[in-house]
Amino acid sequence: MRATPSEVAGLTPAAARRRFRDGLVAPTAGWCAGYAQANLLIVPKDIAFDVLLFAQRNPKPCPVLGVLDAGQTSGPLLAGGDIRTDVPAYTVYRDGRLVETLDSLAGHWRDDLVTFLIGCSFTFEAPMMAAGIPIAHVDQGRNVPMYRTSVRAESAGRIGGPLVVSMRPIPASQVADAVRITSRYPAVHGAPVHVGDPGALGITDLAEPDFGEAVEIPDGTIPVFWACGVTPQAAVMESRPPIAFGHAPGHMLITDARDADYQVP
Amino acid sequence: MRATPSEVAGLTPAAARRRFRDGLVAPTAGWCAGYAQANLLIVPKDIAFDVLLFAQRNPKPCPVLGVLDAGQTSGPLLAGGDIRTDVPAYTVYRDGRLVETLDSLAGHWRDDLVTFLIGCSFTFEAPMMAAGIPIAHVDQGRNVPMYRTSVRAESAGRIGGPLVVSMRPIPASQVADAVRITSRYPAVHGAPVHVGDPGALGITDLAEPDFGEAVEIPDGTIPVFWACGVTPQAAVMESRPPIAFGHAPGHMLITDARDADYQVP
Repeated sequence: MRATPSEVAGLTPAAARRRFRDGLVAPTAGWCAGYAQANLLIVPKDIAFDVLLFAQRNPKPCPVLGVLDAGQTSGPLLAGGDIRTDVPAYTVYRDGRLVETLDSLAGHWRDDLVTFLIGCSFTFEAPMMAAGIPIAHVDQGRNVPMYRTSVRAESAGRIGGPLVVSMRPIPASQVADAVRITSRYPAVHGAPVHVGDPGALGITDLAEPDFGEAVEIPDGTIPVFWACGVTPQAAVMESRPPIAFGHAPGHMLITDARDADYQVP
Repeated sequence: MRATPSEVAGLTPAAARRRFRDGLVAPTAGWCAGYAQANLLIVPKDIAFDVLLFAQRNPKPCPVLGVLDAGQTSGPLLAGGDIRTDVPAYTVYRDGRLVETLDSLAGHWRDDLVTFLIGCSFTFEAPMMAAGIPIAHVDQGRNVPMYRTSVRAESAGRIGGPLVVSMRPIPASQVADAVRITSRYPAVHGAPVHVGDPGALGITDLAEPDFGEAVEIPDGTIPVFWACGVTPQAAVMESRPPIAFGHAPGHMLITDARDADYQVP
């Protein structure tokens, strides 16, 4: 049974996590309105310092909302929850390769695993939509298109990789508003990294994203690029740790933090 | 020979660092107008993950501007510089106790030392003063008063300690402006953590700060408290590492980053 959009928008994060813990697998867009959703990255303690330093050096693509201690399975962002079961779907990477998608990590847990919760652009799309800015991938019912760029993120120890960006085509008259609004959310990707010139980022064809889905680009819009939370996953994969876990695209952790907590000033 | 304020305000950060490298010992308030100054904390690699995680969990008191790799002595925030010599004065802590103040760390350097550069409130005082908000400790020629509070910072691994705050008495009619302006600098302490009730933070006497100097509190002002960059040093000291280094109070690293880089939106 698939929950209806209006029903899931009103759920508390704890109630939503309970459904996923009980076995529901569903994308989380539109769930728990007003609460921040997070990208997931779980790595062995051995490389956790490098990952945290990579995030510190690349705050736009890697806004860290929280880190659980090694072996810890719950924390203030998911009070009463369990990180091994409360995400709708997980990806498993061995030696940097995606080998499996699972609905629970309970069978894979180890006491040396460190969990990173990383901000997600859902947090800034809501205020853009509230300001009347159309979000093409939402209107078209697709996942946001994401692209590897020719820009390298700043590396840290063994962790390095390309900057990955998401793209939203914004009406030319509203580009300034989109910049202004998203720059108020520096803790969740913040202002765009690039406006209007895909070639300068090494993107040759907007119709062929590396992750997510292509969107139709409405007339009169300018492609606007934001740093993307896939960047740390791509970098960790490049370093080929024996084991790492993420969330399946669009199947995020729903946290107890409110989107408004990340707004400045 | 002491440099005159107007002369040092116009120096480039590289030129200022060269003077300190050549042996000058002087407080850095007023130097290199428009450039960000940083608190220094250097710890062995062994506890660097805990320190970085402590900073991630306490972003208001511990805004990390940069981290140098273990053993690294320069980086993009001090291009061409040397962290062992370019700070005017250093403190040396053994087992959590201050044992020495030095003008160079060259004789103490080890390849396992990790350097943290942490934001400083000088960055947000300039725009407050530009907006006509009087800064009492500047007007009175003193160091800012700082207080240990009864609030514990969130701990990380072996690192934990009290939240330390700085206090500025702000005219009641300008408190809202002070909040508004400093909240635009989330990467350097951001908005106040508390306005107007010292007792609620466990501060019994504003005239007896734990660090810095007391200021006279002008009539019609409200004490406003900001999270303070001394917090991570206090926490590291509480964990008693065999060796750690900091900067002497008021003797900061002058970085190549501009204050404006940390302003949002």
